[in-house]
Amino acid sequence: MAPAKPLDEFGLIARYFRPLTGGREGVFNLSDDAAVLDVPTGRRLVITTDALVAGVHFFTEDAPDLIARKMLRVNLSDLAAMAAVPLGYVMACAFPKSLNEQWLAGFAAGLARDQAEYAITLLGGDTVATPGPLTLSVTAFGTVEPGRELRRSGARAGDLIAVSGTIGDSALGLARLQSKIPGFVGDEALIERYLLPQPRVALALQLIGLATAAMDISDGLVADLAHICEASNLGAVIEAQKLPLSNPARNVLAAHPEQLLTVLTGGEDFELLFTIPAERKAELARLPVTVIGRMEDGQGTNVIGADGRAIDTHQGGYRHF
Amino acid sequence: MAPAKPLDEFGLIARYFRPLTGGREGVFNLSDDAAVLDVPTGRRLVITTDALVAGVHFFTEDAPDLIARKMLRVNLSDLAAMAAVPLGYVMACAFPKSLNEQWLAGFAAGLARDQAEYAITLLGGDTVATPGPLTLSVTAFGTVEPGRELRRSGARAGDLIAVSGTIGDSALGLARLQSKIPGFVGDEALIERYLLPQPRVALALQLIGLATAAMDISDGLVADLAHICEASNLGAVIEAQKLPLSNPARNVLAAHPEQLLTVLTGGEDFELLFTIPAERKAELARLPVTVIGRMEDGQGTNVIGADGRAIDTHQGGYRHF
Repeated sequence: MAPAKPLDEFGLIARYFRPLTGGREGVFNLSDDAAVLDVPTGRRLVITTDALVAGVHFFTEDAPDLIARKMLRVNLSDLAAMAAVPLGYVMACAFPKSLNEQWLAGFAAGLARDQAEYAITLLGGDTVATPGPLTLSVTAFGTVEPGRELRRSGARAGDLIAVSGTIGDSALGLARLQSKIPGFVGDEALIERYLLPQPRVALALQLIGLATAAMDISDGLVADLAHICEASNLGAVIEAQKLPLSNPARNVLAAHPEQLLTVLTGGEDFELLFTIPAERKAELARLPVTVIGRMEDGQGTNVIGADGRAIDTHQGGYRHF
Repeated sequence: MAPAKPLDEFGLIARYFRPLTGGREGVFNLSDDAAVLDVPTGRRLVITTDALVAGVHFFTEDAPDLIARKMLRVNLSDLAAMAAVPLGYVMACAFPKSLNEQWLAGFAAGLARDQAEYAITLLGGDTVATPGPLTLSVTAFGTVEPGRELRRSGARAGDLIAVSGTIGDSALGLARLQSKIPGFVGDEALIERYLLPQPRVALALQLIGLATAAMDISDGLVADLAHICEASNLGAVIEAQKLPLSNPARNVLAAHPEQLLTVLTGGEDFELLFTIPAERKAELARLPVTVIGRMEDGQGTNVIGADGRAIDTHQGGYRHF
């Protein structure tokens, strides 16, 4: 028997990507030049785009379904940062010729799984060949009621600073994967947090009308808080003791106290960082969030350690260039 | 004097990309997690996405302003294929570390020039570093009145097939750039057509209510006509003699008649390919379009040569994989 003919561009779109459209009207089974989308009356469209490069944003040998899910979740986290209800996405994939159908099948399965989890569908895309590393970019869409989107710029002096979930797990997981901490054998759960972020889509909707400023933590807590400070023309003080830590992260810090800097400045938490008026603190009680500090007049982010002294967090935060 | 510190991600966004937003409300100067866009009441959003890789879709040494403009125009051509009015775009750029500021300045200047030409603005983006080739992806947005978008699927048997402009220039220009045709020293104008497509944005709007099916020619006339045939469940016959050719292309064919195949199957014309009811042919009179054939019952595209015989165009059309 002759080996099966490899799929061409149109074949792979038909087999792996067309099913991801869910037959949605206006997407035309990915067989037209563009998609046509209705934005519900009385809603604004929210648009975000992110690119991921193998060897930079993920490891080439990562499981393809996890690469797919992380790609979607990075974008969903940006939608959450604006308190948008996710709607769908388009995707541009530059595939190395070495990718095989088994990889594509896993990639498509990961997309399908998170589409179901977050109620989104594929709206369109482009697949090209690249002589370089696998490069993926997604533009994701959500909707928001006009004027209800969360912004980075609305914080006021005296507002409390809060974060969702736990901080630092992803960066510690990456450090373990890269064997960057001698003698550090952290929990598998940290690695999972790096491989599969948990965008705070549902929580974000509960912050509408409560948060005065918000963003998602992708470049690291300290660097991202600096963005809120800059956008709001304020400074911030956070207390390291108040940082919400997972048990695995707590264990790492007990053995490697210097890794507090990784927690503070490591990227890819994909948790929400937001501010609320101090007098509304009680409204956070039922939410998975922790108050870690306060906005102040001035500028810059100060982190106070357990000893009451400022912690130097310079050089923190991921920079691409 | 110390050399100027190289720009980081945020610095280059502020210097080169922020001005491209035109201060548009909802884009927040590119300083928030996502953009917020109003789709005008009574319009549907049209979304298309394309990826371009250096060494695959353009030459690494091409002028950066031309790379930028081609990137936008490829997407504008897809919007034209749906008869959408362009609105704006987001862009994901994976930059090799070797790119310098001079390159970026040229790239941004090219974007600015075509933004002005096509009345669009930058709505958002992501810039990352890549160890591979420069990889660009754009998601472009337009709007259309519901039900007025042009589709690939509406052709009927007996409809006339027409194309805009001239066909084959871009593919012949590329062949010259690549020195693929021995002794061929075609006109510079052909190379310009390859480097800078002319998306048919304005013409497309004039085809609303007239064309029964439409798409833009990116993979080559024969391959793209096959897409209309498939979507419309019909066959097509076109006459090679009727192909609209530029004078430079005519000169090439006079010396290299075998290059007719390049004209028929070469990609990146970015002209419109569409069908209209035969009885409305007169309405094309004032438009820069040429009737080249007819839709028929059956399937597949047949090209008839000057001698009345069918031309074998197999292996035609650009395939990425």
